[in-house]
Amino acid sequence: MRRIKIKGCAAALPDAGKIRFGSQTRYRLRNGQTLLDLAERAAKGALCDSGLDINEIDLIIAGMATPLQAIPCNAALIHERIAKGTDIPAMDINTSCTSFITAFDMAAYLTDSGIYKNILIISGDTASAALNPEQKESYELFSDAAAAFVVSSTSEDSGVLYAAQKTWSEGVHDTEIRGGCALEPSFEMTEDNKDDYYFDMKGIRVLRLSAHNLPSFFSKSMKEAEMSFDDIALVVPHQASKALGYIMPKLGIRKEKYIDRVRDYGNMISASVPFMLCAAIHEKMIKHGDNVMLTGTAAGLTCSILIFRY
Amino acid sequence: MRRIKIKGCAAALPDAGKIRFGSQTRYRLRNGQTLLDLAERAAKGALCDSGLDINEIDLIIAGMATPLQAIPCNAALIHERIAKGTDIPAMDINTSCTSFITAFDMAAYLTDSGIYKNILIISGDTASAALNPEQKESYELFSDAAAAFVVSSTSEDSGVLYAAQKTWSEGVHDTEIRGGCALEPSFEMTEDNKDDYYFDMKGIRVLRLSAHNLPSFFSKSMKEAEMSFDDIALVVPHQASKALGYIMPKLGIRKEKYIDRVRDYGNMISASVPFMLCAAIHEKMIKHGDNVMLTGTAAGLTCSILIFRY
Repeated sequence: MRRIKIKGCAAALPDAGKIRFGSQTRYRLRNGQTLLDLAERAAKGALCDSGLDINEIDLIIAGMATPLQAIPCNAALIHERIAKGTDIPAMDINTSCTSFITAFDMAAYLTDSGIYKNILIISGDTASAALNPEQKESYELFSDAAAAFVVSSTSEDSGVLYAAQKTWSEGVHDTEIRGGCALEPSFEMTEDNKDDYYFDMKGIRVLRLSAHNLPSFFSKSMKEAEMSFDDIALVVPHQASKALGYIMPKLGIRKEKYIDRVRDYGNMISASVPFMLCAAIHEKMIKHGDNVMLTGTAAGLTCSILIFRY
Repeated sequence: MRRIKIKGCAAALPDAGKIRFGSQTRYRLRNGQTLLDLAERAAKGALCDSGLDINEIDLIIAGMATPLQAIPCNAALIHERIAKGTDIPAMDINTSCTSFITAFDMAAYLTDSGIYKNILIISGDTASAALNPEQKESYELFSDAAAAFVVSSTSEDSGVLYAAQKTWSEGVHDTEIRGGCALEPSFEMTEDNKDDYYFDMKGIRVLRLSAHNLPSFFSKSMKEAEMSFDDIALVVPHQASKALGYIMPKLGIRKEKYIDRVRDYGNMISASVPFMLCAAIHEKMIKHGDNVMLTGTAAGLTCSILIFRY
């Protein structure tokens, strides 16, 4: 076990940003508010919840899917909001929608080593910056949100028991924003290729590739972890889409074992997992000593599984 | 010491991309070639140099400063070029120009744990995608390039002896590309704000903040590492600019101790450090058992110091 302890967490949604599509509630940034505002609020909330001061933080990790600017990294821009005047190191870790899981996994190597004591992880994305109103499937699915965790080294019996990630790049073009960065800069945008600068998701292809690869990945992982789902108190999945209710039973995860709030929040990209994990903690859905699974699929196509003892 | 062994490395420059500004040589992508072509060539070269096959790699890390697309992460796009059909996990680690140093440091936690055996790290950026011809200082400084390393777990006496990073976000807006991503999407580009979509560097401010913060960071680090520069065989610095010859003596690093090839290659962003480290290895500037320092400043303002036994 790589020891790591959750000290505090918080989430942030856009002010006055609630909208509805039929029965589905979504959140969108507006009125000049940016993801940095949400990241700042979530980070400060997590610090407050942990009882720690920013000066006690050894490292700031932005575990986000989308860049705020092409340069510098997101963590440096967040640093300016919450840690200006300090010399706390800042870095980005990115596996798209599963970035928080990867950041948490990496953080557990750092806290377990004893070299790092307290790490602040912030996730969140601005889905609304690139949603295409013409692609209803994605336009009505995503929300803007941020969530943050303070995690620490510990001598207690909590930590990462098992973690694994797979990337199948057959699906790399099934979820993408092709334009705006180095491969297709803003300067090259025309009326003809404008769609390249929007988020583009081929939902059916993602679902098909996931349904093909995930069952064997999950059964192999549970075997490697020497666990069954009876040993897991709660599964916190990425809130990818309404297909959650279709894919989870295929993996052997019963309805009462996992959180599904897609109807209430939609897909919050990298914020989904930490947002729901924080809700699980604050709503007392898990208690210390429980085994918790974080999992999700991400653009790539990537899938991550992480089991930790809370 | 966190054990890690360099198994192989390679670098890649654009085909027919050599240009000159006075005495300075630079490299730029052209004729439809992209950074993915360079990343692929560097990655395959590093694999070849290491004697390993892609199927022996446990993890692909893109340690790059700039996004190729807003989604997915760079590592997934590179995965398609070199690992399609496999399920090797892929992730990005980003601290701008020092991304390779951070990725190498993180990789050493992973190889030292024994959980990961062989990791492929690829760095590189497309400076030319955003250089502003009106800003001569940066336009004539940067090159497009890629470099890759295969690093492995080992029972030999090689590994990371010391690593530290600092981020001072007073300098966060001194080196940036503001536009193209979530904070200022391509759709918002007009003739008036077009400059925001170019790389923008305030060289004097970066230099002033570096000169202010680096000397104490270096002396503190050498003290923590319990070393003097006499214990270091070679310093491989980020090839930030011609100011290298000004800043290194201020840190107590003599001319014969460090690599300065800014004249021949310019600033290759995240590729600078691995490109020069690979050159040092292939040109036999270092031998096994030597202590080597990787260091550099990055947009943020970030500075990294890593000392490893080769």
